[in-house]
Amino acid sequence: MSVVALLTDFGLEDHYVAAMKGEILRRAPAATLVDITHLIPPQDVVRGAYELACVYRSFPPGTVFLGVVDPGVGTSRRPLLLRAGGYTWVGPDNGLFALVLRAEGGQVADGLVWLAADQQALVLAAERIAERLSATFHGRDLFAPTVGLVVAGTPLGELGEPIAAILDLPAAGGERVLAIDHFGNIITSVRPQPGEDYAVTIAGRRIAGLHRTYAEGQGLILLTSSSGYLEIALPNGNAAALLGVRPGEPVMVELRRSSDDRLA
Amino acid sequence: MSVVALLTDFGLEDHYVAAMKGEILRRAPAATLVDITHLIPPQDVVRGAYELACVYRSFPPGTVFLGVVDPGVGTSRRPLLLRAGGYTWVGPDNGLFALVLRAEGGQVADGLVWLAADQQALVLAAERIAERLSATFHGRDLFAPTVGLVVAGTPLGELGEPIAAILDLPAAGGERVLAIDHFGNIITSVRPQPGEDYAVTIAGRRIAGLHRTYAEGQGLILLTSSSGYLEIALPNGNAAALLGVRPGEPVMVELRRSSDDRLA
Amino acid sequence: MSVVALLTDFGLEDHYVAAMKGEILRRAPAATLVDITHLIPPQDVVRGAYELACVYRSFPPGTVFLGVVDPGVGTSRRPLLLRAGGYTWVGPDNGLFALVLRAEGGQVADGLVWLAADQQALVLAAERIAERLSATFHGRDLFAPTVGLVVAGTPLGELGEPIAAILDLPAAGGERVLAIDHFGNIITSVRPQPGEDYAVTIAGRRIAGLHRTYAEGQGLILLTSSSGYLEIALPNGNAAALLGVRPGEPVMVELRRSSDDRLA
Repeated sequence: MSVVALLTDFGLEDHYVAAMKGEILRRAPAATLVDITHLIPPQDVVRGAYELACVYRSFPPGTVFLGVVDPGVGTSRRPLLLRAGGYTWVGPDNGLFALVLRAEGGQVADGLVWLAADQQALVLAAERIAERLSATFHGRDLFAPTVGLVVAGTPLGELGEPIAAILDLPAAGGERVLAIDHFGNIITSVRPQPGEDYAVTIAGRRIAGLHRTYAEGQGLILLTSSSGYLEIALPNGNAAALLGVRPGEPVMVELRRSSDDRLA
Repeated sequence: MSVVALLTDFGLEDHYVAAMKGEILRRAPAATLVDITHLIPPQDVVRGAYELACVYRSFPPGTVFLGVVDPGVGTSRRPLLLRAGGYTWVGPDNGLFALVLRAEGGQVADGLVWLAADQQALVLAAERIAERLSATFHGRDLFAPTVGLVVAGTPLGELGEPIAAILDLPAAGGERVLAIDHFGNIITSVRPQPGEDYAVTIAGRRIAGLHRTYAEGQGLILLTSSSGYLEIALPNGNAAALLGVRPGEPVMVELRRSSDDRLA
Repeated sequence: MSVVALLTDFGLEDHYVAAMKGEILRRAPAATLVDITHLIPPQDVVRGAYELACVYRSFPPGTVFLGVVDPGVGTSRRPLLLRAGGYTWVGPDNGLFALVLRAEGGQVADGLVWLAADQQALVLAAERIAERLSATFHGRDLFAPTVGLVVAGTPLGELGEPIAAILDLPAAGGERVLAIDHFGNIITSVRPQPGEDYAVTIAGRRIAGLHRTYAEGQGLILLTSSSGYLEIALPNGNAAALLGVRPGEPVMVELRRSSDDRLA
């Protein structure tokens, strides 16, 4: 039993995700397919990288992740296979896997994330993998077949040429909003430390004092999200709609003495 | 082969549902995962309870249902495992499983639904189940691990302490709109009886005469829904949009002699 | 391991898709279930037929497709099982499977698509298959049970009576927009031939010159879609929103000498 987890910006209206799943199952009939999400905003590589980094450790060792947020499809951007932390990652080399490789100990330098000694990355050899190769749908024609071959046990050496580093995400320049979730919670790039307290200013509003649960707060509150990021929430409401903020919005952060106005 | 069916209000944009699925597969690699829906309106426990009650008997005996609509996460609301009718249910004790237990013979009294003799319920012992326990995501940290352990064969006695009743839903006070479905069909709480005919008044409009299919009607019509509820539909249109109604809207019902204006 | 791929217009808010999946798993516990899409616009049989035709060859031989876009449910429209090209198709006889049967060599005449010698079609015998038969949800009560029985190995002869042809789609009258995809790409009914170049006029705008990738174009461009249709795209934007077009919109096509203003 091998698990394959999929993340794309393909949406759910079309046959695009299913075409990839079919191509996987043609090569690996026993694969267990799990959707992470297909509603990454179109071409939003940062959001895709964030969601992958939040979720991957919940999956069993050996899981193969297929990530396709790929504005450069058909150009010279490199098609990638990465093995790190007991997991395998397949998709475009555009930063989509930068956060997971950083979390697994990859070192950032010169706009790249460099692999540790026990990690592997390949540039995929499309001519050995794809039965056909359209210019616009490498998810179906190259990445999904690669996943199918990996699950079916093909040795990695047959799939491409080793490389030592992958592309990093572009530097963000200060703390930002990473994501707005389904409930309108605003997930920021700030990583709160245990025992510290915080206040943030966003969209002209200052919000102070870390809370523990949605139920204990009123109005706009701060929490540590379930993935360890500072989150702004409006219990039983939609914080992002109230504040009118979007991903990329800057966030100003103050670290406060923990005796301050916590729960004030 | 064990089937796990999931229902939440988590939406489809984020990694939240996938985190739960990963945690299940880590403990029960052979589970077959099926989504019921993740688009329950945020915090709408009544809608979640309704959808579970409509669908569960279509699933094979032994299916484990994971239901998470959980506005009280992190507070003193009890985490629950329920076994009734050959199925297992895991999620918060807030009424989400009240309709299925009623359908399986549970008795309502004092705001609770009491179990029959052959049924079981437990308050989950989080300290024995969760590897970590965030304050905001018990779906990932407690409920999904519980489902994984149940599918993997863990004896129920190791998972918590028995209880005799679960929370009922709040009393509704009269017939109401339970749900607006994808087609704009308005599902009411009324259960039509075979051989009877009905008229309803909703949003100032009176609609008379039960029809059998969407194709045989014109304008707003009444039908018995596929789950046995009185439904207001606009064939090839959207009844809810036309009438401007939402869940919770009151519905006035007249039982009519069956010789009245049926199909008039 | 049998794959079952599902396509409907049921949406994702309700329990409708899950009810079908449960009914399949009750009869065929080892089935691997894959969603194609459940966001076909309500009652849009043409769009459903298009998506099925685009995707089916990505699936392994033996895959069973369950397609339910069924405005005539409960009327005299025929319930269908079709076997062609190594695949099985189950759903209403209303044109939904016309494009796949045409692609597999079926011959169009008199508003019907006629089967080739090695193909089979049946009108399903509901009284032998359905445990109950509601008037409004044959997906759950008839089509999904049929799929379960087929996967479990029931001989086709037990499921209905053979027929020689299925309903075709209504004639469209000229080239049209078939679909708007998640990215706002406009998929037309035009099938570009290799080596030819094209210009189209749509919504008062003329767009000339076939491009190969999204990345190489600026403004509105033409491409051959990954399924072989002429597609109008706005790289990093939404062509359908810019032009304000919808499915069914007429498209005027000029075939051009390939030395013309390609990439001009």
